[in-house]
Amino acid sequence: MERLTDLVARHDAIGVRDWLDDRPPHEIADELARLEPVGAGWAFRLLDKDRALSAFEELDPVDQQELLGGLRDDAAVALVERMDPDDRARMLGEAPAKVATRMLAGLSSGEQAMTATLLGYPDGSVGREMSPETVAVPVQATVTEALAVVRRKGADAETVYTLPVTDAGRTVLGTVSLRELVLARPQARVADLVDTGVPRVQATDPAEYAARLMGEANLLALLVVDSEDRLLGLLTIDDAVEILEEADTEDAARQSGATPWSGHYMYVRVTKLARTRALWLAVLLLAAVLTVNVLQLFEDSLEQVTALALFIPLLVGTGGNAGAQAASAAVRAIAVGEVRLADLPAVVWRELRVGLLLGALLGGLGLVVASVLVGVQIAGVVAVTLVAICGWAATVGATMPLLARRLGIDPAVVSAPLVTTLVDATGLLIYFSVARLLLGV
Amino acid sequence: MERLTDLVARHDAIGVRDWLDDRPPHEIADELARLEPVGAGWAFRLLDKDRALSAFEELDPVDQQELLGGLRDDAAVALVERMDPDDRARMLGEAPAKVATRMLAGLSSGEQAMTATLLGYPDGSVGREMSPETVAVPVQATVTEALAVVRRKGADAETVYTLPVTDAGRTVLGTVSLRELVLARPQARVADLVDTGVPRVQATDPAEYAARLMGEANLLALLVVDSEDRLLGLLTIDDAVEILEEADTEDAARQSGATPWSGHYMYVRVTKLARTRALWLAVLLLAAVLTVNVLQLFEDSLEQVTALALFIPLLVGTGGNAGAQAASAAVRAIAVGEVRLADLPAVVWRELRVGLLLGALLGGLGLVVASVLVGVQIAGVVAVTLVAICGWAATVGATMPLLARRLGIDPAVVSAPLVTTLVDATGLLIYFSVARLLLGV
Repeated sequence: MERLTDLVARHDAIGVRDWLDDRPPHEIADELARLEPVGAGWAFRLLDKDRALSAFEELDPVDQQELLGGLRDDAAVALVERMDPDDRARMLGEAPAKVATRMLAGLSSGEQAMTATLLGYPDGSVGREMSPETVAVPVQATVTEALAVVRRKGADAETVYTLPVTDAGRTVLGTVSLRELVLARPQARVADLVDTGVPRVQATDPAEYAARLMGEANLLALLVVDSEDRLLGLLTIDDAVEILEEADTEDAARQSGATPWSGHYMYVRVTKLARTRALWLAVLLLAAVLTVNVLQLFEDSLEQVTALALFIPLLVGTGGNAGAQAASAAVRAIAVGEVRLADLPAVVWRELRVGLLLGALLGGLGLVVASVLVGVQIAGVVAVTLVAICGWAATVGATMPLLARRLGIDPAVVSAPLVTTLVDATGLLIYFSVARLLLGV
Repeated sequence: MERLTDLVARHDAIGVRDWLDDRPPHEIADELARLEPVGAGWAFRLLDKDRALSAFEELDPVDQQELLGGLRDDAAVALVERMDPDDRARMLGEAPAKVATRMLAGLSSGEQAMTATLLGYPDGSVGREMSPETVAVPVQATVTEALAVVRRKGADAETVYTLPVTDAGRTVLGTVSLRELVLARPQARVADLVDTGVPRVQATDPAEYAARLMGEANLLALLVVDSEDRLLGLLTIDDAVEILEEADTEDAARQSGATPWSGHYMYVRVTKLARTRALWLAVLLLAAVLTVNVLQLFEDSLEQVTALALFIPLLVGTGGNAGAQAASAAVRAIAVGEVRLADLPAVVWRELRVGLLLGALLGGLGLVVASVLVGVQIAGVVAVTLVAICGWAATVGATMPLLARRLGIDPAVVSAPLVTTLVDATGLLIYFSVARLLLGV
């Protein structure tokens, strides 16, 4: 099978149309994102209207804007008008303010109001991601009446599987699932079927929190309410999956000391990629000046026994590795909710023991290796240092993400690289102190 | 609100029952996992039957087994009998073979057969995670007839929102959603509503691949078929979310050089935690011996200019950080499908430029800092080295995960720590070569 890129390069309209006909929307979106804007726009116009919309909604906001830029104004407006409100809000939320205002102005008044409401919630909140078009059923309805509501209003809603149940004042009482309605006797009452114990979130709550809650509670849709428990919308599971994927991508970036960024790895500009990494690298470089200072303290020892210098990278590297392992385990345990702030003392005690166990193992290994390479005296220093560094690094590595959490900083931010750099400097202190003690230099 | 732990410690049965009554199953599971087995078993027996089952299904397999161990044999068998087949298979798949066999033997023959089938698929495959209890509708049915099938068989199925559509020979033609059935005219035909373009997977395909596919294609349930396209089951979105969370946890562990493990961070034994990290630490320590060898090569230069040693941790640290950033970006881009093997040359070219850009920035910074600390001569060596190391580290960091993928190794395995260790040794080679060139030592 030929790739879309090649077909577009050849301007083979029939080939492109055949290729597009065979593919599900998410694959089409994937390939469109890989094309240059002009080619993507050309291929996109060959899609029929419904599939064009589906594929468009699957694109990243950045790619959506690029593609819109390549369409005629009226075609762009028509496309945006037909998007789901939450997808539209996500796209406009990332667009330059001027572009977003112009597009909003082109919409019909109903869609405009809905989108403006979503955009009114803070970036990263549930309000930005929820679907305002829901099918609510009144609590006093019978199953037959409730199903009639679904049939009447269901076509526009993002989901009809989770139905908010409301009282006369639009206050949310709980949800009833379409499954229960279909399986229940027609004359049964919604009041007897409603699940009032389902969790609900406020529109201003963080989207990641809501998405994790859905995963834990196995929900297909989550109630979003205002401060008076009135229905605002539903967060659907497909959006929650995307939120989680994005959050995990951000955590992965942060854990390696880079700023999270949106867009496709292969198509983001090199200077932008460099910018996401530059700040942290520079900060870490300045933090690493500490290691220079520590070594300057011990410059005499170094001049007396140059062989001590040979093991510097090995020791700081091992400390960094042990610290990174512990930090990464702690960050993940915090993210999935296994560790809370109150667990700090228990975590310190656990990791200290883990670190000392690992240190004992590595110390033995280091003793053998270093004896062969430089003799038993320095090997002894290396071995003792390994035990101490591993215990210290594991403890610091697991503690720092928890402390960050207590200070309200994202735990992922302070993990591996920062831990490594701190452990480097303190590790050197340990190394040369041990050397002084054992060798008297 | 008091914590369950405290209530259980006081053996306050009424307090525990009140606490349990107010909570959704996933929160109950969360707290049960934090209790000692005896206390957890005691609290668990205070739950009513249905909520006990829901909470039990939310537990990790390890915790499930511990809890079962604390129940009377007949209570344990009754509980396992009522579990969903996929949850049961997951639990038994991680249990010791003897325990699993005994539990299987206690089940009714229908449940036993279903579970044995699921356990017959390899660990980590879709077959292990799918729900075999589906509601399939015949393609020649009308909407009314299809809805009657849903009402008749829906109670036992894990989902009724995605309905496989089959022909007379059980071959899968596609799916129809309950939403479409409810919204369609009663006399419409399933044949006109069926979506034949939905993706499907084989039971032996990797579960993570299937779960990511569901996220991309926005599916609530994914068709699982055999090699002749006959229906085997459905993978539902709640299971897919769990699969993805577990895969991301594993990737996070691997990226920090630890073996993935199952179980709760706070309750896994310290020796087990140490074992997940020991192998990689030891391998990395042995790899770090390379850095000792490189430094031995340049021992003369070190003795002549001890000040060179001062910057060793800073330089290898910066190289490691730059490499880890690139590796982490590449691993994530591979995981979410943005980078493929064919992109290797493009990735190398991108990262080389990113690295050199960052190197230029850090080189400038390093020149200033080192001039102040040790004078301009060595500062020059440090600056030039930073440029070279950053370019080299970013390139190696992004390339190694891709090469691993080509060799069929999980890209996450070869990332940050391995990259760092390799970059350490080569970085020292660069450093001392530059020093020889510029200082003539």
